[in-house]
Amino acid sequence: MSPRLQDLPLRDDLRGLQPYGAPQAPLPVALNVNENTHPVPEEVADDILDSIARALRDVNRYPDREFIGLREGFAEYLGHGLSAENIWAANGSNEVLQHILQAFAGPGRRAFGFAPTYSMYPLLTRATGAQWVAGTRGHDYVLEPESAAEQVAEASPDVVFLCSPNNPTGTPLSIEVIEAVYEATDGIVIVDEAYWEFAPHEERSALTLLPGRERMVVSRTMSKAFAFAGARVGYLAADPAVIDALRLVRLPYHLSALTQAAASAALRHAPTMLRMVDEIVAQRDRISATVEALGFHAYESWTNFVLFSGVDDPGATWQALYDRGILIRDIGLPHSLRVTAGTEEETTAFLDALASIQSAS
Amino acid sequence: MSPRLQDLPLRDDLRGLQPYGAPQAPLPVALNVNENTHPVPEEVADDILDSIARALRDVNRYPDREFIGLREGFAEYLGHGLSAENIWAANGSNEVLQHILQAFAGPGRRAFGFAPTYSMYPLLTRATGAQWVAGTRGHDYVLEPESAAEQVAEASPDVVFLCSPNNPTGTPLSIEVIEAVYEATDGIVIVDEAYWEFAPHEERSALTLLPGRERMVVSRTMSKAFAFAGARVGYLAADPAVIDALRLVRLPYHLSALTQAAASAALRHAPTMLRMVDEIVAQRDRISATVEALGFHAYESWTNFVLFSGVDDPGATWQALYDRGILIRDIGLPHSLRVTAGTEEETTAFLDALASIQSAS
Repeated sequence: MSPRLQDLPLRDDLRGLQPYGAPQAPLPVALNVNENTHPVPEEVADDILDSIARALRDVNRYPDREFIGLREGFAEYLGHGLSAENIWAANGSNEVLQHILQAFAGPGRRAFGFAPTYSMYPLLTRATGAQWVAGTRGHDYVLEPESAAEQVAEASPDVVFLCSPNNPTGTPLSIEVIEAVYEATDGIVIVDEAYWEFAPHEERSALTLLPGRERMVVSRTMSKAFAFAGARVGYLAADPAVIDALRLVRLPYHLSALTQAAASAALRHAPTMLRMVDEIVAQRDRISATVEALGFHAYESWTNFVLFSGVDDPGATWQALYDRGILIRDIGLPHSLRVTAGTEEETTAFLDALASIQSAS
Repeated sequence: MSPRLQDLPLRDDLRGLQPYGAPQAPLPVALNVNENTHPVPEEVADDILDSIARALRDVNRYPDREFIGLREGFAEYLGHGLSAENIWAANGSNEVLQHILQAFAGPGRRAFGFAPTYSMYPLLTRATGAQWVAGTRGHDYVLEPESAAEQVAEASPDVVFLCSPNNPTGTPLSIEVIEAVYEATDGIVIVDEAYWEFAPHEERSALTLLPGRERMVVSRTMSKAFAFAGARVGYLAADPAVIDALRLVRLPYHLSALTQAAASAALRHAPTMLRMVDEIVAQRDRISATVEALGFHAYESWTNFVLFSGVDDPGATWQALYDRGILIRDIGLPHSLRVTAGTEEETTAFLDALASIQSAS
């Protein structure tokens, strides 16, 4: 008889847990994990491949531990007067957040976020030995400066997560909330802008708040707007002192030469890579309008997805969509489901299926 | 005035630390970090590139979280009746070891290794909140079964590291030591075979000990024999229950689609990739014989490097080599230096330079 997990000397706090991860299923229309469903344009893929071919010539050597070229690329892309010394990157924004928690949270410390928010925050926090404290949101999941600051002051955390716009609700976060929370804590304030490129172009990124706020970190990812989920590249901007701290906890050579080459090449084509963003935003707004017309409530979204409520039986609706070849996400909020804005065709498939389910019920 | 690291709310246990990493310098002959100095053969690089090109078509989607294809490739390469369910992989063997420590060590627990050994073991251990306990070695850094088992029983660790062969000394580790240590502990026993491909072909890998030993883990890397240090791919073989444990602590999608494609392609060419190994072993043995002839003591090595002692002033010899364009490693052992076996030309450059320094002193 083969041994089982409970026979091994596993840590007590891991016993009984299940591995994290969205359900995966090979359906024709996958709108469940907020990917960019548009492939990387061919001319960009060709240039990425050329860069990787060059990197392969030296792949027998360890990669640049400081990934200077890539950090320069991110600084140029972000603008706001940032330079390479303000930038950090890792294998997905989850690893970026893990580095921050390892440096500033960890055993005996506390991290805080306003629920419901990105489900990896509590998991990453606990995995580094820190305690997770959840705050609350107001009507329609919106945060107000005064309430947010009060909750943070009360919790006295070492690290605060502000998801802007918020996942899984899509909710915008005002600059005033970020300013108020920063004043209310002596800890690190992470503004997670994973979906920022889908926000209205005239809105102010938290990057504008960085000067003079050495405890603030603005994290981003290439997974969404850059259609690069498979390449696993997250990054952040912060005061150079924060970067010095992250260097203490990263594994040496954590970013492969292939990842550095691929991401640097993609950044050189940022305008082309981001061309799909406006189209995705149009599909997102179409989803919001259509589900409202179908009698649901669509929460305001600055992301590439829409959370909608008014679903009598989310499990049943999820299954009915699944049976029609469409995968969306039941993220466990009452009477709610979340759907990613896909291509026009994918979005149409989802909306048509939802309408037919709705009229049949 | 810009803020400094000590002004940030950094964890107390990180204050005053320096980032880990071997000194890097752009010298013509770099024999300091035990890389494989032979580039990946061109025909293999072409096939890797083809695989990456295919992966790029879907890079907008998250990668296979279970990296099944890659795990099958490792199982086939390792043999010994292993299958994909016995295999785990991550971004370099450091991350593989980190996953083990997160699952089985971490806060309140203890990891143990026999010093001097791979310098990342204590760093990885402490970074996960566990305590590091160092044991000792006998003459010429050799471990004997009885002493090793006694030390482990005495320390009562949750995780034991056995580096086979040992870095930075090159020392072989007998199968009897592994068996004795396994019997002496209820914890996880990691046999780190990062350099195993450079050991004599007739010797038994710890993989032969896996059946019936559900607490044993054998870790490997593609960085050395496979000339893939830049691609960051480490892996391990163990009971499937151990793999279940690692799934609880890994970040979701930790291995990029590009990494999976590159590593799978390289594994398909294992015989070609490993063709350099015999040549490197020949250079290693030439280094050992030549430094002995120069009056130093070369420790027995089953790796791609040689530790030699009898150096009056290691810092001065290291600098004299550096001034001749040759980078080796002062790993802090008294009167000792470590050098990687390079190509025939690199090895000749090192040996000639060492001889000229020796005769001048």
